[in-house]
Amino acid sequence: MPMKCLGCHLANKNEPVFVVYEDEFVCCFLDHDPFNEGHTLIVPKKHVRYFYDLDKSTSDSIMKAAGLISNAIKTLFNPDGITICQNGGSFDDLTHFHMHVVPRYEGQNFADFFSMDEAEVKDRAGLSETQRKILEFIFNSASAESNHPSYISE
Amino acid sequence: MPMKCLGCHLANKNEPVFVVYEDEFVCCFLDHDPFNEGHTLIVPKKHVRYFYDLDKSTSDSIMKAAGLISNAIKTLFNPDGITICQNGGSFDDLTHFHMHVVPRYEGQNFADFFSMDEAEVKDRAGLSETQRKILEFIFNSASAESNHPSYISE
Repeated sequence: MPMKCLGCHLANKNEPVFVVYEDEFVCCFLDHDPFNEGHTLIVPKKHVRYFYDLDKSTSDSIMKAAGLISNAIKTLFNPDGITICQNGGSFDDLTHFHMHVVPRYEGQNFADFFSMDEAEVKDRAGLSETQRKILEFIFNSASAESNHPSYISE
Repeated sequence: MPMKCLGCHLANKNEPVFVVYEDEFVCCFLDHDPFNEGHTLIVPKKHVRYFYDLDKSTSDSIMKAAGLISNAIKTLFNPDGITICQNGGSFDDLTHFHMHVVPRYEGQNFADFFSMDEAEVKDRAGLSETQRKILEFIFNSASAESNHPSYISE
């Protein structure tokens, strides 16, 4: 892990993050300045920047996570739609691959998503409550489907 | 295939499209009104709308295609970055899952991507030339790696 990569630190929980799902290859946590409630980042644990550099296991985990998280967001927050988005190259502000899962509502100007300034976490209590809802939903979904539910490790 | 789904028609080449890559599960063709040269859509051949409804084979093909196409775009057009983006629900204008692969340059306002009006194909000759470049790149990359290159079917 490059020592100065913020994405590596976040994905490996060396910085405080509100994790909603993880497996061996990816960590998924709430955006600290969400566009809407439930806005989540899917971040590989291993350092990688570009789509074409993803290994198969990480790639599989990203798609699985995107499905689980978008299903949880749809059910919990009932947005009009969800945008899944990865900005690469000089538009990758973490200098580490990360995929946004963003609930959206009619009437909002999504263009704002691309002009939002970086912000400090405004509402830790709010993020913590969102985290609880998504964790619970994914845990219950996994429990219903399998005796080996996916869940975050401590 | 729902008879009236434009996405199904496009992905199965029942409408004219500039295909740059395809396999059994996805068809990838140039956006008819590109944000920049190389702007491509990755579209499942089977009707599906939501991320959480993708089957594993389609999901695998989408990620493989995203890697191949973004690598081709990076090499051929040298953008400052690439955004990979899927708009679901009421923001899915094809009512069929499709993932954009969009080359981007510093100084452009990407917000415009979300406020662009639908347009007719303006420059078929331009799209055809872009198609040729990407097809050639992917074919040559695949040939270099394997005796069984991925390539479009006629």
